[in-house]
Amino acid sequence: MKLWQKNFEINKKIEIFTVGKDRNLDLFLAPHDVIGTLAHIIMLETIGILNINELNSLIKELHIIYDTIISGKFKIEDNVEDIHSQIELILTQRLGEIGKKIHSGRSRNDQILLDIKLFIRKEIQELVFLIKKLFNVLIDLSNRYKKILIPGYTHYQIAMPSSFGLWFASYAESLIDDIFFLKNAYNISNKNPLGSAAGFGSSFSLNRKLTTDLLGFEDLNYNVVYAQMCRGKTERIVSQAISSLASTMSKISQDICLYMSQNFNFFSLPDNLTTGSSIMPHKKNPDVFELIRSRCNKIISLPNQISIIITNLSSGYHRDLQTIKEIFLPIFDEIKTILLISTFMFKKLIINKEILNDKKYKYLFSVEVVNSLVKKGVSFREAYQKIGLDIQKGCFSPITDIKHSHEGSIGNLCNKKLSYIMKNSIKQFQFEIVNKAINKLLINNNFISFE
Amino acid sequence: MKLWQKNFEINKKIEIFTVGKDRNLDLFLAPHDVIGTLAHIIMLETIGILNINELNSLIKELHIIYDTIISGKFKIEDNVEDIHSQIELILTQRLGEIGKKIHSGRSRNDQILLDIKLFIRKEIQELVFLIKKLFNVLIDLSNRYKKILIPGYTHYQIAMPSSFGLWFASYAESLIDDIFFLKNAYNISNKNPLGSAAGFGSSFSLNRKLTTDLLGFEDLNYNVVYAQMCRGKTERIVSQAISSLASTMSKISQDICLYMSQNFNFFSLPDNLTTGSSIMPHKKNPDVFELIRSRCNKIISLPNQISIIITNLSSGYHRDLQTIKEIFLPIFDEIKTILLISTFMFKKLIINKEILNDKKYKYLFSVEVVNSLVKKGVSFREAYQKIGLDIQKGCFSPITDIKHSHEGSIGNLCNKKLSYIMKNSIKQFQFEIVNKAINKLLINNNFISFE
Amino acid sequence: MKLWQKNFEINKKIEIFTVGKDRNLDLFLAPHDVIGTLAHIIMLETIGILNINELNSLIKELHIIYDTIISGKFKIEDNVEDIHSQIELILTQRLGEIGKKIHSGRSRNDQILLDIKLFIRKEIQELVFLIKKLFNVLIDLSNRYKKILIPGYTHYQIAMPSSFGLWFASYAESLIDDIFFLKNAYNISNKNPLGSAAGFGSSFSLNRKLTTDLLGFEDLNYNVVYAQMCRGKTERIVSQAISSLASTMSKISQDICLYMSQNFNFFSLPDNLTTGSSIMPHKKNPDVFELIRSRCNKIISLPNQISIIITNLSSGYHRDLQTIKEIFLPIFDEIKTILLISTFMFKKLIINKEILNDKKYKYLFSVEVVNSLVKKGVSFREAYQKIGLDIQKGCFSPITDIKHSHEGSIGNLCNKKLSYIMKNSIKQFQFEIVNKAINKLLINNNFISFE
Amino acid sequence: MKLWQKNFEINKKIEIFTVGKDRNLDLFLAPHDVIGTLAHIIMLETIGILNINELNSLIKELHIIYDTIISGKFKIEDNVEDIHSQIELILTQRLGEIGKKIHSGRSRNDQILLDIKLFIRKEIQELVFLIKKLFNVLIDLSNRYKKILIPGYTHYQIAMPSSFGLWFASYAESLIDDIFFLKNAYNISNKNPLGSAAGFGSSFSLNRKLTTDLLGFEDLNYNVVYAQMCRGKTERIVSQAISSLASTMSKISQDICLYMSQNFNFFSLPDNLTTGSSIMPHKKNPDVFELIRSRCNKIISLPNQISIIITNLSSGYHRDLQTIKEIFLPIFDEIKTILLISTFMFKKLIINKEILNDKKYKYLFSVEVVNSLVKKGVSFREAYQKIGLDIQKGCFSPITDIKHSHEGSIGNLCNKKLSYIMKNSIKQFQFEIVNKAINKLLINNNFISFE
Repeated sequence: MKLWQKNFEINKKIEIFTVGKDRNLDLFLAPHDVIGTLAHIIMLETIGILNINELNSLIKELHIIYDTIISGKFKIEDNVEDIHSQIELILTQRLGEIGKKIHSGRSRNDQILLDIKLFIRKEIQELVFLIKKLFNVLIDLSNRYKKILIPGYTHYQIAMPSSFGLWFASYAESLIDDIFFLKNAYNISNKNPLGSAAGFGSSFSLNRKLTTDLLGFEDLNYNVVYAQMCRGKTERIVSQAISSLASTMSKISQDICLYMSQNFNFFSLPDNLTTGSSIMPHKKNPDVFELIRSRCNKIISLPNQISIIITNLSSGYHRDLQTIKEIFLPIFDEIKTILLISTFMFKKLIINKEILNDKKYKYLFSVEVVNSLVKKGVSFREAYQKIGLDIQKGCFSPITDIKHSHEGSIGNLCNKKLSYIMKNSIKQFQFEIVNKAINKLLINNNFISFE
Repeated sequence: MKLWQKNFEINKKIEIFTVGKDRNLDLFLAPHDVIGTLAHIIMLETIGILNINELNSLIKELHIIYDTIISGKFKIEDNVEDIHSQIELILTQRLGEIGKKIHSGRSRNDQILLDIKLFIRKEIQELVFLIKKLFNVLIDLSNRYKKILIPGYTHYQIAMPSSFGLWFASYAESLIDDIFFLKNAYNISNKNPLGSAAGFGSSFSLNRKLTTDLLGFEDLNYNVVYAQMCRGKTERIVSQAISSLASTMSKISQDICLYMSQNFNFFSLPDNLTTGSSIMPHKKNPDVFELIRSRCNKIISLPNQISIIITNLSSGYHRDLQTIKEIFLPIFDEIKTILLISTFMFKKLIINKEILNDKKYKYLFSVEVVNSLVKKGVSFREAYQKIGLDIQKGCFSPITDIKHSHEGSIGNLCNKKLSYIMKNSIKQFQFEIVNKAINKLLINNNFISFE
Repeated sequence: MKLWQKNFEINKKIEIFTVGKDRNLDLFLAPHDVIGTLAHIIMLETIGILNINELNSLIKELHIIYDTIISGKFKIEDNVEDIHSQIELILTQRLGEIGKKIHSGRSRNDQILLDIKLFIRKEIQELVFLIKKLFNVLIDLSNRYKKILIPGYTHYQIAMPSSFGLWFASYAESLIDDIFFLKNAYNISNKNPLGSAAGFGSSFSLNRKLTTDLLGFEDLNYNVVYAQMCRGKTERIVSQAISSLASTMSKISQDICLYMSQNFNFFSLPDNLTTGSSIMPHKKNPDVFELIRSRCNKIISLPNQISIIITNLSSGYHRDLQTIKEIFLPIFDEIKTILLISTFMFKKLIINKEILNDKKYKYLFSVEVVNSLVKKGVSFREAYQKIGLDIQKGCFSPITDIKHSHEGSIGNLCNKKLSYIMKNSIKQFQFEIVNKAINKLLINNNFISFE
Repeated sequence: MKLWQKNFEINKKIEIFTVGKDRNLDLFLAPHDVIGTLAHIIMLETIGILNINELNSLIKELHIIYDTIISGKFKIEDNVEDIHSQIELILTQRLGEIGKKIHSGRSRNDQILLDIKLFIRKEIQELVFLIKKLFNVLIDLSNRYKKILIPGYTHYQIAMPSSFGLWFASYAESLIDDIFFLKNAYNISNKNPLGSAAGFGSSFSLNRKLTTDLLGFEDLNYNVVYAQMCRGKTERIVSQAISSLASTMSKISQDICLYMSQNFNFFSLPDNLTTGSSIMPHKKNPDVFELIRSRCNKIISLPNQISIIITNLSSGYHRDLQTIKEIFLPIFDEIKTILLISTFMFKKLIINKEILNDKKYKYLFSVEVVNSLVKKGVSFREAYQKIGLDIQKGCFSPITDIKHSHEGSIGNLCNKKLSYIMKNSIKQFQFEIVNKAINKLLINNNFISFE
């Protein structure tokens, strides 16, 4: 049964096509749809569309539905189009006419938009929690192995001395910028679209500020045409932020895969975390990191996919936006799994502590020798020419006792500073404001905070 | 002459290929390279690599070079590889050995990174200034035409009443989110990479905090491996922010092109702002808006282009990053031109004030009629069914006297609120901090502030 | 149980991550895996790795497995990693040691590659069949409505007279080029990788020409390193061809959605093929065409997605290639559904036959008037200037009795020629060669030909 | 002066924006514009629009213009919009009224389309010539170093024995498929759009078959609406084919950059073909191959860029298509340079002949040992288990005397077959047909054939 179905029958084949994957995808949105409806009806009561008894009956039933959803038992029936219809249907079955009143002053357009925004807020909160855990592991590893030197490469060529301390912490710092980008996406999402209806507002005297407060939003999407325009735009911005994170994870995995090659041999993994070959009995492959890399790269292509779908569409809702749900909603589960798995894997990485003994690495120290001349007063360009000639003539001898002291160098990693910045960045999200508001709507319910 | 050239000759053909478009592109970076060098040498003096006389001679010559650049007379000579070499060459020609000292504790890698970041900061500042101007024009138009109704469309179908006021302001609000995204990109860029050298730091005891302060950066990229990793990542994030802006401009242009069709006829343009056809004498085409649309769409594809270049490269510098310069650096001029041109064009748009007289638009008001029943106590779903049947039976009569009162609706645009938010958002950039620092380095020079 | 598992246990969480969606995706490949194995073992018998009795036992069991797959009852068990392992497991359970012999001279790498290529060949065959059906419908509609004029637009502006005949046939001709591109993809795919093993060949004296013939391939991928390199490359080329088709379908849907707007009103659909609005009782939206458009656009982004995954990986297998399966294999079902649905929908389109009566369309005929002057000897540029002035002065009168006679114009659509070219293009695929070979391997089995 | 300018003035700023880079880009199209015009006017004479004297005067002047273009002296004047206007202007200046007649039965739309197609044909011809040269070098290197073994990698892990012979030839075979893809693009482009005018044909009785023959096209784009729709579609297909080639070049460069790392040391380059570091005097970086890689990756992103520009535009010309010129036309020069440079560089590659002496490579031979057991009758799976245990226990001893004999393996490269296929593939283009036709139009002129 579709609410907009009036009295004609819809061809079955077409129906399957138009519904698409919505019955599955909408389960991502289900708890948020209840939350959004709670705020909407509380507001409707204040403007006289519902009376207080109707409101209380609805709240009670919505709390029951929410519990069903959280317990994993909620289903969208086969003949019901989407989550919104399913919830409205249940309310109507249980409460009769009252159930039919909840859609006043709303359209499915602003309803889905709202659900997506509530979903994004919740998922980013979980993501930040997992990033923090990974960050801590990387900082721990950096501190633990800060004295173990490795070759630093440029152009895949042996360049200058680096260290495991430097390498691990570099990705930790990358996560700080990724968190910052996520906060940008979070803030842009954290605005209330409810009341924009089909994108042109409503003649009801809706109190949009009230729903904004009830849902813990930072502000409204004011202009109703713009509120609707946020669909697609929001998903792209959020997926760009997630792509930045995915890019960090892809790059660290690329490094690990390469450095696990016998030709580098910086890392290895316990046998049970490698996979074998169906043909070569000696193989121990870093499949997990290869899959992290490729699945992250798939995520990196998502913003472009969204762009191709929405580009050159004029303003106002188009059904095309539904297609974005199927590529966007599952991305959070994917990246959360990647964070979980990699946090686990990093802890299991086995570090080779004897890398620099190999004589091919001695030229790593050529800059040290140049700099030692500069410190004696030779101009940099002259010192550089001299050592270059020494290397050509085969009479170069390295200075391996390196003392890097400036911020962010081998000898001064600034990891405490990084941890402080990370902690502070997370604080800026002010998740507690949102969590408090949602918990109030769900009183007696188990909305889980990630702080 | 290349600084790294030692004593072999390089094949000419190869040289042209490797230098690529750098001689032209580096002109974008030229003033910033001087600024970065000024900060670096001031710091070098404090750690004893330069004495005060050497420093003063260098500063004097760098100020002269800066003036030459600003006056448009600076050139990179044909046998000089890039801006960095050109400036070092001039200094050496004028000051002898002293000129060769300025590269101590630096690599071209952190030098270019720094130049790119200083360039980004400056360009974003100009961009924000232009966006503000466009925003003001859109808000003015919204206020001016707030009473003129137009049809609102969903699915390209006539949907509900909208207005020019609503339509213009929707894009103004879109610019607010775009500014916010730009600030995110600005903040991520506004960190000092100087001192990371080739990506592994330096054995000189560089004072990175000093150069951070001298250049007005908010903070450092601490970890030197991460500082280098920012190359590519920074350009992608900045181009994502610009893409969001481009997306807004593309969409408004798409709307205008469509609505200028004789089949809509919402807008027209003065003849001298349209173009004709080489075959059809009656044509007046909105080419300017079509080109804004397509050039914005080209910009939208840029982050993906950067992703394809950097994906699956391991950490550490690769020459591939040079290729990003040629697609990234010119993007600012492109988007600034688009902003300038569209600000001009919007002011010239001719508004059709009599759109809704056409009888095909009467169903726009069906929701008004439904809502009027709801206000009388009918449930929303029942009212909806009733009016649907009326329309089918041909006995629908519209209520055209619409009174939308909630935030962001036809009757309550909240444009003052939007202007306030925009003003406040721009303030957050704190451009004055950066401008003050740079002006201090360039004392007696004409660094232009955009505030 | 994994074949490469040796004797250590694999962490469950990691296993789920590495197996990914393979258990589902491999069902796409299941029949092809049996077919590939049949060819491989027939060859193994000729080089003495299997004896004739072993071969016959294996063939018999593989035929049974194939039937199970075709009947839809085949499953990959929860503790089995992929389709290849499942089939080997069944054979080993039923035939003991013999089952373990089938992997001689093969690796999972060339096995999957082979499966993918057989899958592509089969799917393209079905696709071509469905494109042909759609092409016929478009040509029929073109012939049927060839006399009904519509405005032709450039820049969304009314330009010159067009017709439904011209419009429908234009997309039919687009499908011809799409078929041609598919044939290119088909030919590049239709080469035998079997024998490349893990990408470096085998020390068994495999007879690769025999398996090439048995599987009906046009030729081999000769070089074994290149054979492996085809993974990813093949999927990208095939998805580029499908994207070209998707692009045609997206564009025709965009036209229909726009032309169904009340502002154009060229088309309408029966009520039961439109969808309504949850808020506006008058709406009849063309959701089906909007979804065709957006799902096609999603497909258009696929080749880029593959590029991001494979770019900058060195030669030799990487597990990353598995991730391509999850985005590539389902694409055929998606595009086949789109073709089926749109073929159905086009037949239901209701044509407005009275479009040009509207007076806004009279300037359509300005070129006719110019040309009539040219035919009288006036130079084109002068005639153009004169009619331009007439239009400005308001004294233009159209010539509506148009007679376009050249190839591909309103009066001479060349639809028969197009049908001939389409028929001929399909013939070039020579599907019968492949079908004959596969049917021979599956004797007594129901491999379905689409000719 | 613009032909469509009628009598109003165009704002200068807007003009610069709309003309964009056309004055430069159109030089790519200049010779082809003359060729197209020659064919068009010869046809116009046959249908009575021009008389024979007019035709002969025009041909004479066009031949002169063509010579000027070929000599590099042709310019588009500052106040002239594009190449088409410039040529028409010259003809009018020299021949008066006759010059104004050449645009009869044509629009700039089909004129540019034609130019682009003639340009593509010519450029693909040059490209194929350069690919053939590179192919030959790769095959020569493969033959020369066919006995030198190298480790083959999967997952960046040491896997099985490979050889330089195998590695070089794999990329040669990749070029064969790329040539095949280019032929697909060539064929789709090699159809005559002339006569489609603005996309809706002409009321002149144009003889489109005659211009098809005169220009050596294989066939027509029949339907005039489809002919116009090819704009954008053609460029995308061609750029997809070039991307496939770019992908081959990017991958081989990635391999070389990695294998030049001291950790692999398979290749080196003469000092004068590497570049140094501004800070590390020992560095010899493979910048040329890094830049080939990144510039190829930039090319790989082009089809997606075109998609974003054209997606969701309705049929009929939009000015957006002009933007594609600026990203598409220069791509041929870029890829031709890449082919030239890499052909040169491959010849200079220095091969390390002693790679496998290193003991870390002994496990390469584990499959050989497994297979030797299989040949003695052990089932593959059992042999695999046994050798796996030997390796774990440290008692594995390799069989290094490998004898791979099947097609495409180390011992049987099939390079002659590959050369034969390449030669035959190029023959299929039938460039001589096109060249003959164009030479006839340019009689006494120096159109250069690349055969």
